Amino acid sequence: MKVYEIRETKGIESLVIVERAAPKAGPGQVLIRVHAASLNYRDLLIVRGQYMRGLKLPLIPLSDGAGEIVETGSGVTRVKVGDRVAGIFMQGWLSGDVSAYHAQGALGGALDGMLAEYVVLHEDGVVHIPSHLSYEEAATLPCAAVTAWNALTDWVLKPGIRVLAQGTGGVSIFALQFAEMAGAGVIVTSSSDDKLKKAAAMGAIGLINYRSTPDWDRRALDLTDGTGVDHIIEVGGPGTLARSLNAVRVGGRVSLIGLLTGVQDVVNPMPILGKQIQVQGIFVGSREMFEAMNRAIALHQLRPVIDRVFPFEEAREALRHLEMGAHFGKVVIRVSD
Amino acid sequence: MKVYEIRETKGIESLVIVERAAPKAGPGQVLIRVHAASLNYRDLLIVRGQYMRGLKLPLIPLSDGAGEIVETGSGVTRVKVGDRVAGIFMQGWLSGDVSAYHAQGALGGALDGMLAEYVVLHEDGVVHIPSHLSYEEAATLPCAAVTAWNALTDWVLKPGIRVLAQGTGGVSIFALQFAEMAGAGVIVTSSSDDKLKKAAAMGAIGLINYRSTPDWDRRALDLTDGTGVDHIIEVGGPGTLARSLNAVRVGGRVSLIGLLTGVQDVVNPMPILGKQIQVQGIFVGSREMFEAMNRAIALHQLRPVIDRVFPFEEAREALRHLEMGAHFGKVVIRVSD
Amino acid sequence: MKVYEIRETKGIESLVIVERAAPKAGPGQVLIRVHAASLNYRDLLIVRGQYMRGLKLPLIPLSDGAGEIVETGSGVTRVKVGDRVAGIFMQGWLSGDVSAYHAQGALGGALDGMLAEYVVLHEDGVVHIPSHLSYEEAATLPCAAVTAWNALTDWVLKPGIRVLAQGTGGVSIFALQFAEMAGAGVIVTSSSDDKLKKAAAMGAIGLINYRSTPDWDRRALDLTDGTGVDHIIEVGGPGTLARSLNAVRVGGRVSLIGLLTGVQDVVNPMPILGKQIQVQGIFVGSREMFEAMNRAIALHQLRPVIDRVFPFEEAREALRHLEMGAHFGKVVIRVSD
Amino acid sequence: MKVYEIRETKGIESLVIVERAAPKAGPGQVLIRVHAASLNYRDLLIVRGQYMRGLKLPLIPLSDGAGEIVETGSGVTRVKVGDRVAGIFMQGWLSGDVSAYHAQGALGGALDGMLAEYVVLHEDGVVHIPSHLSYEEAATLPCAAVTAWNALTDWVLKPGIRVLAQGTGGVSIFALQFAEMAGAGVIVTSSSDDKLKKAAAMGAIGLINYRSTPDWDRRALDLTDGTGVDHIIEVGGPGTLARSLNAVRVGGRVSLIGLLTGVQDVVNPMPILGKQIQVQGIFVGSREMFEAMNRAIALHQLRPVIDRVFPFEEAREALRHLEMGAHFGKVVIRVSD
Repeated sequence: MKVYEIRETKGIESLVIVERAAPKAGPGQVLIRVHAASLNYRDLLIVRGQYMRGLKLPLIPLSDGAGEIVETGSGVTRVKVGDRVAGIFMQGWLSGDVSAYHAQGALGGALDGMLAEYVVLHEDGVVHIPSHLSYEEAATLPCAAVTAWNALTDWVLKPGIRVLAQGTGGVSIFALQFAEMAGAGVIVTSSSDDKLKKAAAMGAIGLINYRSTPDWDRRALDLTDGTGVDHIIEVGGPGTLARSLNAVRVGGRVSLIGLLTGVQDVVNPMPILGKQIQVQGIFVGSREMFEAMNRAIALHQLRPVIDRVFPFEEAREALRHLEMGAHFGKVVIRVSD
Repeated sequence: MKVYEIRETKGIESLVIVERAAPKAGPGQVLIRVHAASLNYRDLLIVRGQYMRGLKLPLIPLSDGAGEIVETGSGVTRVKVGDRVAGIFMQGWLSGDVSAYHAQGALGGALDGMLAEYVVLHEDGVVHIPSHLSYEEAATLPCAAVTAWNALTDWVLKPGIRVLAQGTGGVSIFALQFAEMAGAGVIVTSSSDDKLKKAAAMGAIGLINYRSTPDWDRRALDLTDGTGVDHIIEVGGPGTLARSLNAVRVGGRVSLIGLLTGVQDVVNPMPILGKQIQVQGIFVGSREMFEAMNRAIALHQLRPVIDRVFPFEEAREALRHLEMGAHFGKVVIRVSD
Repeated sequence: MKVYEIRETKGIESLVIVERAAPKAGPGQVLIRVHAASLNYRDLLIVRGQYMRGLKLPLIPLSDGAGEIVETGSGVTRVKVGDRVAGIFMQGWLSGDVSAYHAQGALGGALDGMLAEYVVLHEDGVVHIPSHLSYEEAATLPCAAVTAWNALTDWVLKPGIRVLAQGTGGVSIFALQFAEMAGAGVIVTSSSDDKLKKAAAMGAIGLINYRSTPDWDRRALDLTDGTGVDHIIEVGGPGTLARSLNAVRVGGRVSLIGLLTGVQDVVNPMPILGKQIQVQGIFVGSREMFEAMNRAIALHQLRPVIDRVFPFEEAREALRHLEMGAHFGKVVIRVSD
Repeated sequence: MKVYEIRETKGIESLVIVERAAPKAGPGQVLIRVHAASLNYRDLLIVRGQYMRGLKLPLIPLSDGAGEIVETGSGVTRVKVGDRVAGIFMQGWLSGDVSAYHAQGALGGALDGMLAEYVVLHEDGVVHIPSHLSYEEAATLPCAAVTAWNALTDWVLKPGIRVLAQGTGGVSIFALQFAEMAGAGVIVTSSSDDKLKKAAAMGAIGLINYRSTPDWDRRALDLTDGTGVDHIIEVGGPGTLARSLNAVRVGGRVSLIGLLTGVQDVVNPMPILGKQIQVQGIFVGSREMFEAMNRAIALHQLRPVIDRVFPFEEAREALRHLEMGAHFGKVVIRVSD
């Protein structure tokens, strides 16, 4: 079978396609024929060597993929051959609160990932995907969608609250969709009026171009009658956190998710105290969250927003496309038909 | 001014219209010109003498009403003359969890209610009503809508959960509207196929005629793939609770709200233990809940479902209409134009 | 090896001691040399055929036991040979909220239990026991202690609240110990002044003899200045629930745990509504709860209260002792030294 | 009557004692003869002009005081003449979650404070104090104790968790007392071995001298077997937050309370994301929290730790004593006998 390997972490060119023997499903395991995979910003950091130390190489990249079960090992009961599944991001976080114990074993990082024609996972490490979704669509869910779901459902999520999602990348577009599904009013920021138009068409009630309005926090306050946003989905990281702390309401929450603006920036935490804000780090989520999200996606026949689908041979082009930051929604790689 | 009084609790005929001197707003109080009031099942029980002991008579009935502030007492800061407001059910429950202390002082019960041309309330005891609603519509909110809101938001309310609302009275129709607004899938029960059709038109995804399907609990299990409903809005009381305990999922919740089937019935609580169910008594809610609900109503431009509006002179006819149980949504009395 | 079997469910005499081949640890499994087991009321119901339908016979009884790992199967990483462990009640409920999926596979019920010299469990189905506890002490934890812990920690548990524990059986004594550990004030009921004295010596601040004071609910109200108890650990079941609903405060909780008074009784649920009470069914708990509880037990060097230890050969006598109801704390069986 | 006034915010010397006419209780108000007041770090910032802009001068300082009600205005029902009470920090935050609306009107800041022989407050703005406490002891509660209580009870507080309290000032010593009362294991940091000895005598199970062990975060990790502390009471502010983020466990909480190290420092927020930490700003708390805390204090007959009591005439000396930072527990001013 064909798989991609990261052999050294010197950037996108480090990604090479190789031939490996197809794996077998051991006891409790399942063999998945992968049909599609999707990209996250983390995958870019990993291939650049910016994500984690001590990465074991060569590594099959990508946390996100979906496919069909073609073989089950002994003792498997949760799934059967023919089932359509996606892998879960952290193979050990099945339910309950996060812990260091649960957070081990992420696909495409500590463990080999999904950019391969076949992968073997433990039966506990997969979820059924909603039947109305294609494999391309389902492949977008494991990291970005579960992250957005976790961030939103981990705190007060009731109709009428105001949620602000930064930008129009994968997590933020899912946050827009899920927050609306839950009856919240969503404000979206972007550097592009075109993207803001798309967000408006998806139901966003507040639009802020942070290029033409650099003090977007003040605009967010205006849009909420001076009160502030209830919940901010903070994907920018340190570079935007200061403005988020200004834009959020007294007693509100900032879900800290991303690191797009770099990992070295710093912030003055005083507003957290003065406004009794809650800043919560969110790192994907559990299988239980994934399954609850899938029930919501199925009920609402929600479709993930796919920016573009690349063929398997063009995985590097796909990563470069992500790197450019011009996408709206998810970048997908079709692995097999 | 004209007011209705309950002078004795011998049924609907006990309700008489009388003339009283218009009240004045004291320090911290507001004088409201009431434009509309709405009925709840509780009002029927009160006039029949079935609701609470030691009722102080004569009593101006009805907890629910909306109007315009026409005078403010000294020190009033939360509202001003001209504001459109509704009274809150328990005048002392402003925020936080319920307590015996908070639960005192309900309108139309321990205190005089809203079926009068003018009423005086403390400024803390009113909320602004959404601007897109008429007074008739806003008058439906204080008891039924806040009850439905409290029941739904007091527990897990995330997209994809299944909620079952019993019947098509005031609380249940609001529960249908709010649960859908929050992305839940709603199952409605009714004895009338016509009413079920209306519920379907409002978005209900499961419909059960409990007359033709007396074991509606088994049907609810079927509609949820045998798993059971996540949350049941139980308005029937003891007579239907046993079936609700059967229809709810392991670990699910039954919000116990109503007493339509009578207060003497009993239930075997064993399923609560075996399925680790949570049965939560819900009795209206706080001002803070009312205000959060109003934000949601305003954001979604939601309109309460009004079954019929009666003129002020026909309050007894309105109560008889409620008594017949043929209504779908709320029964309203127009007090003044 | 020697094991007890239930071959028919006709009462305590149905329990017989037999010889079986010692089991082997398969992949992911561990072989435990059981040192001690403990009894719960459930074990009595099972041997009498009153607990669940479709029990697979012969069955090795008892959910609760502790021992030493003497062999590990391939792939085992959570534990090692020599570790002191106890089995968890529901082998599949590791963390998170309960669900039908989690609630499968209880020891001594759907699965063979711990009354055997050796048992094989999956490595996920055991927890390390606190080092200061003997095997006899640790064997008391899996059902009764985890149940009490789950009931108390699933709701508001802060210093100064009032908890009422019914009786002095296993769950209630653990509830007394844990609630005090958490700074609550505990009221204990019993039919015996001697047992109440023991409870007082353990720190109970309220004592009610429900034989001499049959309306113990009124006494509980008196002890809380008429306000009512915050949280009641209800082990009596339907027969005592009505009084618990009276004794609990507005907005308080009743954790429904036991069925000592029989499964056919009924209760009028009206006070649940009127007082906005929460009745929560509790059925043991997850591995995560067990581990959190063990950390608390270790920190406080808490010792379970053992009523009496019986030798392995006298398991039937132990059950008869439990059946008499004269115990204070847990009844233990020493399986091996 | 004698009162202290801040007439300009140029430091401790700006505090002067003046004569004012004794106030009267208006409708809904109470007149309190103040017996004792206590100091917080905030009082020092206020007199230095470092706390808030737009302070209305002259201002009677100090949020914390306790006394006896000597007169009640019309309509007062919550308290009566002779009752022993303390004022609540934010006069408008009675219950429920914090909001901008609730957070107005803090004593000794936006409103005149307690360093006066008589003060008038609204009856809603006071709580009864535990009967076993002297006025000096009760005067320590409104800010520091309620802050510690809010921080601890706003998150998981169950026996066996590890709490770290920074230093031995007012909030931290209350946090030590309350956390222990709740069954937590408490680690205390200090620059003084003498103070650590006192903390140990009060039950702290971990002691770290951050002068001799500047990387106290690593020591905290060691003390928790490398796992990290569950909950950190962060009073240092930006200057210590980075170490707190290192010392807290995956999924743990840092309650951000104080600003001792200055308001200009910055922190790299990345660990919040990587470890899914929750950073929660805490600013005192509601009347409901104060009352719940008082129930706990009364049940446990807990006594606040008073460092030193100054006579009314030596308020400036008291502030200087606080400024030196050599105190252990609270600094109190006796206002009248």
